Amino acid sequence: MDAGLDILSVFKENGLFDYEVSEELVGGAAIDAVGKPLPEKTVESCQSSDAILLGAIGGPKWDHCKERPEAGLLALRKQLSLYANIRPIQVSEELVHLSPIKEDRITGTDFVIVRELTGGIYFGESRELNEENALDTCIYTKEEIERIMRAAFELAQTRRKKVTSVDKSNVLATSKLWRQVAIEVSKDYPDVTLEHQLVDSCAMVMITKPKEFDVIVTENMFGDILSDEASVLTGSLGVLASSSLSKTGIHLFEPIHGSAPDIAGQNVANPLSMIYSVSMMLRDSFKQYKLADMVDEAVRQVMKKDIMTKDLGGSYSTTDVTRHIRQELM
Amino acid sequence: MDAGLDILSVFKENGLFDYEVSEELVGGAAIDAVGKPLPEKTVESCQSSDAILLGAIGGPKWDHCKERPEAGLLALRKQLSLYANIRPIQVSEELVHLSPIKEDRITGTDFVIVRELTGGIYFGESRELNEENALDTCIYTKEEIERIMRAAFELAQTRRKKVTSVDKSNVLATSKLWRQVAIEVSKDYPDVTLEHQLVDSCAMVMITKPKEFDVIVTENMFGDILSDEASVLTGSLGVLASSSLSKTGIHLFEPIHGSAPDIAGQNVANPLSMIYSVSMMLRDSFKQYKLADMVDEAVRQVMKKDIMTKDLGGSYSTTDVTRHIRQELM
Ligand SMILES: CC(C)[C@H](C(=O)O)[C@@H](O)C(=O)O
Ligand SMILES: CC(C)[C@H](C(=O)O)[C@@H](O)C(=O)O
Repeated sequence: MDAGLDILSVFKENGLFDYEVSEELVGGAAIDAVGKPLPEKTVESCQSSDAILLGAIGGPKWDHCKERPEAGLLALRKQLSLYANIRPIQVSEELVHLSPIKEDRITGTDFVIVRELTGGIYFGESRELNEENALDTCIYTKEEIERIMRAAFELAQTRRKKVTSVDKSNVLATSKLWRQVAIEVSKDYPDVTLEHQLVDSCAMVMITKPKEFDVIVTENMFGDILSDEASVLTGSLGVLASSSLSKTGIHLFEPIHGSAPDIAGQNVANPLSMIYSVSMMLRDSFKQYKLADMVDEAVRQVMKKDIMTKDLGGSYSTTDVTRHIRQELM
Repeated sequence: MDAGLDILSVFKENGLFDYEVSEELVGGAAIDAVGKPLPEKTVESCQSSDAILLGAIGGPKWDHCKERPEAGLLALRKQLSLYANIRPIQVSEELVHLSPIKEDRITGTDFVIVRELTGGIYFGESRELNEENALDTCIYTKEEIERIMRAAFELAQTRRKKVTSVDKSNVLATSKLWRQVAIEVSKDYPDVTLEHQLVDSCAMVMITKPKEFDVIVTENMFGDILSDEASVLTGSLGVLASSSLSKTGIHLFEPIHGSAPDIAGQNVANPLSMIYSVSMMLRDSFKQYKLADMVDEAVRQVMKKDIMTKDLGGSYSTTDVTRHIRQELM
């Protein structure tokens, strides 16, 4: 988070972009400070902001607490109606050698996962029925599906005009509804091709033919699994950012990686996914396209000079990399 | 299916193994013949058999039918209590070059997925609530989880003694129960190490570090996705077989691949996964270890001579490959 805010502050110092930041607690840090993972003050502060930058929320420290850090994130998504999680998956030429996938299969991969984020089994009734049984329910409404479909189709219109809707319609009622709504909504976007894929099949094609995809749209639980699967294809988890779009217009931006407890606090974590989260925010929430491009270009220059953290094969620290990007921008 | 039965018949001709086969309909073929995907006659025949060999059940032909081929397979699993789907994932030296994963990461991969097959969201209440909403429910009982856990731990005892239990216990009540039962059951197997992994994380590690796994145990829906993801890691889907274990002792054996409508009927499909299904059956249901080894060895010899179907880089037909394996056995 420090790295992201540091880069953003360059534009304030330059007089290119003025803003205020308020820092609030969520997840584990909030549990430690006030005993719950999503304090009201955090929600209120988010609601009166123009955009939200999120750090990571959990770690083994809270594994055995009654209050769970994750509950804070889920409540934040629900209370702010962050219904569409957008995860671009791209392989950069400089980093393609880091991919676990053979180069000829992965080079040129460029797709986006659009994950429904406020419905499904994440937010249905979920409880122990008694000591012997537990239950979770997955509910989807037509309205929820339609909303996320429109996000996917509109995104596809700005790209290669193909939507892959992922479901398990050969088994689940919610997936049958999902597919039906996908077909209905697609009629409003005649320039976009819609294809359907079963979730198990999609998990395969993602590895064997990742170039096939343009925009993948899927429900919450499948999206959780598939977007994490997709994130390792490129071999550079540390450079991926994501946005969660809200109907209120207050969007959230965050790195794809989690709290990485194995390296936390050692000044070796890759700051690029947070810095890319900042450029996504500048672009999507503040329409500061030029500034966003400047950030992306600064990152590119620094990478070209092989100034990278360990995960990308370099030996620079988090603060080193950030400082070089800052210098590039000044 | 023809290829599998052809290989099996060698042992009958030789006087090494006597058996009877009854052929029954399920899935699409049953819908065509009698209007439903699982005729009673099929169930009765399975119940009075010692083992079941399954072909594939679906195809685009039935995409728009009211009756679904898949319903036949699901009902078969439920009615015969086929509770544990066992999918070994191994990379053979001869075929490792076909893997989409870089060789240094995939060589040596050898794990088994144990998927719970008769519970969870596959068999919970599943319906349209009205025109606007649909619902699926996921229920797990302690007993169901305990049973599949024991299958996994017992398998691990015959291997590298490590069980990775996969759940989403940071969100789902059924997963919390899952994890709790995993911990309880593990106490009966002190020689086996238990680790937990969240499903999203497992989907990543499977690609980045597939060698880490020994036995993966997970619930029905996660198992569907993860086992298909795993099946493409080795690059040779056409050689993978799976078994579904039943508490009645009547187990089911089938190739991992589906009906492959794009190549069906062209005599180019790889017969190896069906032939391996036969050797699995000989081993697990009939305790004919020597015959099973003979089949596996015959396959190995034929592969060594580069007698392979197209998917493995060869140019032989289904019947060619089968004939060569038959000759090897005689
Ligand atoms: C932390 C967890 C609840 C969360 C999720 O499952 O949605 C995470 O895995 C994610 O993908 O953002
Ligand atoms: C055909 C379908 C219902 C089935 C499943 O989802 O279990 C298949 O994908 C499988 O994995 O055997």
